[in-house]
Amino acid sequence: MHSKTLRELATEIGADLVGDGDVVVSSVNTLQDARPGQLSFLANPKYEKDLESTQASGVIVAANSKFDRVPTLRAKDPQLTYQRAVLALHGPRRHPHMGVHPQAFVDATASVGEGTVIYPGAYVGPQVRIGRDCVLFAGVIVYERCAIGDRVVIHGGSVIGADGFGYATSAGVHHKIPQVGNVVIEDDVEIGANCTIDRAALGSTTVGKGSKIDNLVTLGHNVRTGPGCIIVAQAGVAGSTTLGHHVVLGGQAGIAGHIELGDGVMAAAQCGVTNSVEAGQIVIGSPHLPIREGRRAYALVRELPELLKRIKDLEREVEKLKTK
Amino acid sequence: MHSKTLRELATEIGADLVGDGDVVVSSVNTLQDARPGQLSFLANPKYEKDLESTQASGVIVAANSKFDRVPTLRAKDPQLTYQRAVLALHGPRRHPHMGVHPQAFVDATASVGEGTVIYPGAYVGPQVRIGRDCVLFAGVIVYERCAIGDRVVIHGGSVIGADGFGYATSAGVHHKIPQVGNVVIEDDVEIGANCTIDRAALGSTTVGKGSKIDNLVTLGHNVRTGPGCIIVAQAGVAGSTTLGHHVVLGGQAGIAGHIELGDGVMAAAQCGVTNSVEAGQIVIGSPHLPIREGRRAYALVRELPELLKRIKDLEREVEKLKTK
Amino acid sequence: MHSKTLRELATEIGADLVGDGDVVVSSVNTLQDARPGQLSFLANPKYEKDLESTQASGVIVAANSKFDRVPTLRAKDPQLTYQRAVLALHGPRRHPHMGVHPQAFVDATASVGEGTVIYPGAYVGPQVRIGRDCVLFAGVIVYERCAIGDRVVIHGGSVIGADGFGYATSAGVHHKIPQVGNVVIEDDVEIGANCTIDRAALGSTTVGKGSKIDNLVTLGHNVRTGPGCIIVAQAGVAGSTTLGHHVVLGGQAGIAGHIELGDGVMAAAQCGVTNSVEAGQIVIGSPHLPIREGRRAYALVRELPELLKRIKDLEREVEKLKTK
Repeated sequence: MHSKTLRELATEIGADLVGDGDVVVSSVNTLQDARPGQLSFLANPKYEKDLESTQASGVIVAANSKFDRVPTLRAKDPQLTYQRAVLALHGPRRHPHMGVHPQAFVDATASVGEGTVIYPGAYVGPQVRIGRDCVLFAGVIVYERCAIGDRVVIHGGSVIGADGFGYATSAGVHHKIPQVGNVVIEDDVEIGANCTIDRAALGSTTVGKGSKIDNLVTLGHNVRTGPGCIIVAQAGVAGSTTLGHHVVLGGQAGIAGHIELGDGVMAAAQCGVTNSVEAGQIVIGSPHLPIREGRRAYALVRELPELLKRIKDLEREVEKLKTK
Repeated sequence: MHSKTLRELATEIGADLVGDGDVVVSSVNTLQDARPGQLSFLANPKYEKDLESTQASGVIVAANSKFDRVPTLRAKDPQLTYQRAVLALHGPRRHPHMGVHPQAFVDATASVGEGTVIYPGAYVGPQVRIGRDCVLFAGVIVYERCAIGDRVVIHGGSVIGADGFGYATSAGVHHKIPQVGNVVIEDDVEIGANCTIDRAALGSTTVGKGSKIDNLVTLGHNVRTGPGCIIVAQAGVAGSTTLGHHVVLGGQAGIAGHIELGDGVMAAAQCGVTNSVEAGQIVIGSPHLPIREGRRAYALVRELPELLKRIKDLEREVEKLKTK
Repeated sequence: MHSKTLRELATEIGADLVGDGDVVVSSVNTLQDARPGQLSFLANPKYEKDLESTQASGVIVAANSKFDRVPTLRAKDPQLTYQRAVLALHGPRRHPHMGVHPQAFVDATASVGEGTVIYPGAYVGPQVRIGRDCVLFAGVIVYERCAIGDRVVIHGGSVIGADGFGYATSAGVHHKIPQVGNVVIEDDVEIGANCTIDRAALGSTTVGKGSKIDNLVTLGHNVRTGPGCIIVAQAGVAGSTTLGHHVVLGGQAGIAGHIELGDGVMAAAQCGVTNSVEAGQIVIGSPHLPIREGRRAYALVRELPELLKRIKDLEREVEKLKTK
């Protein structure tokens, strides 16, 4: 941790200082838990009530905030400014070793770029190419011939390039179709813990530049994601499906195989997407519906007992009218 | 395995013996599969029909059971009594080695309490503290600065303390927010295989004392669970959500971020909990509903074709009435 | 890769050649990506449009196809024929080493059959038996006393035989029930990456001969699957449930405990199966319904706003009729 005055920090992270710039902070914390000497932030309006009681020595707020009980750093994008403040005060992770740890396994035919850190227990198979400044945490497994770009981070236990799930079934026997493709992870991707990204049957399964993947996500063979996608924990994408750029999949979302999700599509948590979705759409539910239609429809499920009652009332009324 | 007479066993596990106490048993088995010399039990009424045909030499039953074809051990809580019998006859797991296995990696700055067993291929990062009498099975990964209490068991491949999923997105680029917190696992917790429990963005992600977590579960950054929680396989809890004590999450349940589940809440398998839930409630479905309301509503989905027919009939009747 | 004439290949894989048999191919590719010198195939009618533009030197098609712009290999079962062609041209995976890699851990009391390959970082516990010609990829963990047949393939990070999730709860404390059974994996099973197959409480959890399991699947204690089952990624089966032969579970499907799915049952992606299902049935949705009933019912959820409108119209009409 690095101690800085709010004035130094404001300059470094590009924020406007309001209040005493000589105040020193050395770490960040939530509004609720911050103690004197710590910097806090308001990114989620849900926590606005904590502003009045916070003991933080400084708070990052939106440019138009009225809060001034303690010194503030004001910015148009408080979350990005907070991100810079964390980096400025805490620095990036300090790895306990450099390069390939002796208890990792890297095949003699694999190549590992400069600045890349590979933790104990990781496995890198034959002819794998890994770029510069990557981090493979403990237990990461990369099968043969996969290609990983620069500045890629893969968390513990994730498996890159295991065989896609492909069999030719005949007379009740499932004959394995060799999966002769690979996985390509582009630059600046981060992959969470215990994910599985399968190698292509033919060609490449691809994760686009700058995409971020949470824990326990699975991407089937020949899935391709555009750049900048966000895939939340436990989501799954079946084989040969294509995601455009900046697609967002919520937690536990399931995406069928052989379809396309256009640029910027957002699929809500737990939704089940069974057909292609046009760029820019937000879909919810299983099977998925466009958000407006889905919200109205799924909300009415809750009203079904009431709807049934209204139908019964109508039946009674109509019966009465008929016998009049 | 240890051979014991039913009389010895009854004393040891606190059950009432009915029948021949000299009968010797040396292991436990299901009613269906038990052979002479084995002890069995009836915990789930579903298997009551197997009582008459069982070849077990003794059976643990409820205190008020009428079954007496073979000697019985009677107890108010047959499942707990069965648990004691398994321990008495089979003993706890015998580990193939003591302490830290040479093929595990434990950072020089980590501390490991007495009696703790760490299997080959496990990874324990810098400044991790692990208490006494814990077991970390093969492939368990504990990132830097996490803290694990006493008698904690973590099964193969689980990852404790990987980075939470936090980015500040600006102009389409996802900037990683360093996750500077840690994970705290309290005493007597058991965690299944291939789980992922993320380190906090700030502060600690916490698993409360005596909580039990099944396989492939994910807890996001800054999740806190109270003591005694039960989280079934493939459930996921998003960031900053708080679970009270003895909360139960069914398999594949998904819990949104930044909400609270009160003490004793039960969320059914596959449910999707999007808002805070008061203590003691049982919720089902996605989006979740209180169980009574949810059961009626979701049951009516099945009746929708019938409801549609009734609406059509009404429309026809009303049309007739109008033209009369 | 092996170069072969289409004539040689037709004989080897049992297809009928139509066109120039002297054409040489050396690898397979999709219709869209194939270049001259490559063989392609049409298995999914969705890609039929790519036939006209493909640059492949030969294409595997159905026996009755009219396509003849390039030489074809015709077969009754084009997918199986494609599978054979991939094997014939690409061969099976070439492992970078034979036998047990020195960076794997195999307990001295375990037995490993001839031809079995165990990758670095795998763990095989005490008294495990592994048959011939198996492959355990990096990071696979097999707990004590489990039994694995011949030609079994287990992908990276999967955990076989961790403890089932069983506790006796008394006065708010969850007392662990020792899981004294094991896991039996029969011949010709393939298991994807990061799966968890729990050891039985008593007896064996069993995966039937020739079953194929995708990534991140969990099978609870005492689950038994028949032969030839297909379990797609992220599906989960709770304890003591039995699957007949050739049961298919879609991605993210959840199957309750203590039930039976008959032979050939198909449970759709994301469905939640809460009761036993008769042989041959196809079920969808959560809670599951037979496919015909389920399709009609779940489709009407989308129509609920329209149904509500029709009920309101009826109420208005009836009100009018009453005041007439």
